[in-house]
Amino acid sequence: MKKLSISPLTRAAFAPFGEVIMTDGARHYPINQGTTERFHALACADTHSKNGQTILSLFRAQPRQLPLPITIMERHPLGSQAFVPLTQNEEDEYLVVVAPAGEFDENKMQAFLCKGLQGVNYAKGVWHHPLIALHKISDFIVMDRIGHGHNCDEITLDGSWVLA
Amino acid sequence: MKKLSISPLTRAAFAPFGEVIMTDGARHYPINQGTTERFHALACADTHSKNGQTILSLFRAQPRQLPLPITIMERHPLGSQAFVPLTQNEEDEYLVVVAPAGEFDENKMQAFLCKGLQGVNYAKGVWHHPLIALHKISDFIVMDRIGHGHNCDEITLDGSWVLA
Repeated sequence: MKKLSISPLTRAAFAPFGEVIMTDGARHYPINQGTTERFHALACADTHSKNGQTILSLFRAQPRQLPLPITIMERHPLGSQAFVPLTQNEEDEYLVVVAPAGEFDENKMQAFLCKGLQGVNYAKGVWHHPLIALHKISDFIVMDRIGHGHNCDEITLDGSWVLA
Repeated sequence: MKKLSISPLTRAAFAPFGEVIMTDGARHYPINQGTTERFHALACADTHSKNGQTILSLFRAQPRQLPLPITIMERHPLGSQAFVPLTQNEEDEYLVVVAPAGEFDENKMQAFLCKGLQGVNYAKGVWHHPLIALHKISDFIVMDRIGHGHNCDEITLDGSWVLA
């Protein structure tokens, strides 16, 4: 067994894999006659390849238990994919596991603990584990690509890497 | 004073103005080895005009009080704009006021009460009031357009129409 340890999610640590969607440290300014604060452009869709379009979907995820063997990773070669938890509670945590775009290298996997007030936007082609909710059934709004072309690769692992 | 009455938000009633983002009545199917249910394509971004890009931002809205005089309406002629409340509580309500795209007609304004589990995607060019949160400070994830070109028109009203 090879243990994949879990780090806190920060913009700096996640930068090789995409964007962190959170208000902390974001540019913001008042709009709507001062009644609303806009935290601007926390994520940018990269979905235009092959005339793709950008959609919003909702993912309802069952909670997972640790330790969790990593048996599958996936990537979307034609588009970014963003996840934002539908909560205002930072205790609604979830996990992401990523590996750099390009040829998959299990030794370059990294795991991050995301607080409920944090979303992630996987850059096009970045390897990632399917959604890992914790504690309870969790809803996420998802921004990704729809359109022609092959946009999902999966790779299976033997389960010797364990998220713990 | 002219009272603008408030109707429940439904897909049918909102169809002339855009999409309702909610799981009720949406197409859904299992993904991620059965651990996640995908409620698919609840909203589609319409942001490509003049090489626009699609972004996610977070809007933090102060709660408003009723009765609320309608003194401003706006539209985005180059792109759709979607709002999804960051909550899993249907009691986190908010209001939307819309009028059809094209020349603004105050007599065609409609107001809808949105439950916390409902988002809206204003179609390109649809007139709408700035965000109206209720009860408490409320966060929304917003999908809209960034790019060159003039993408916001505002129109002022004399306040004789009141949301109540």
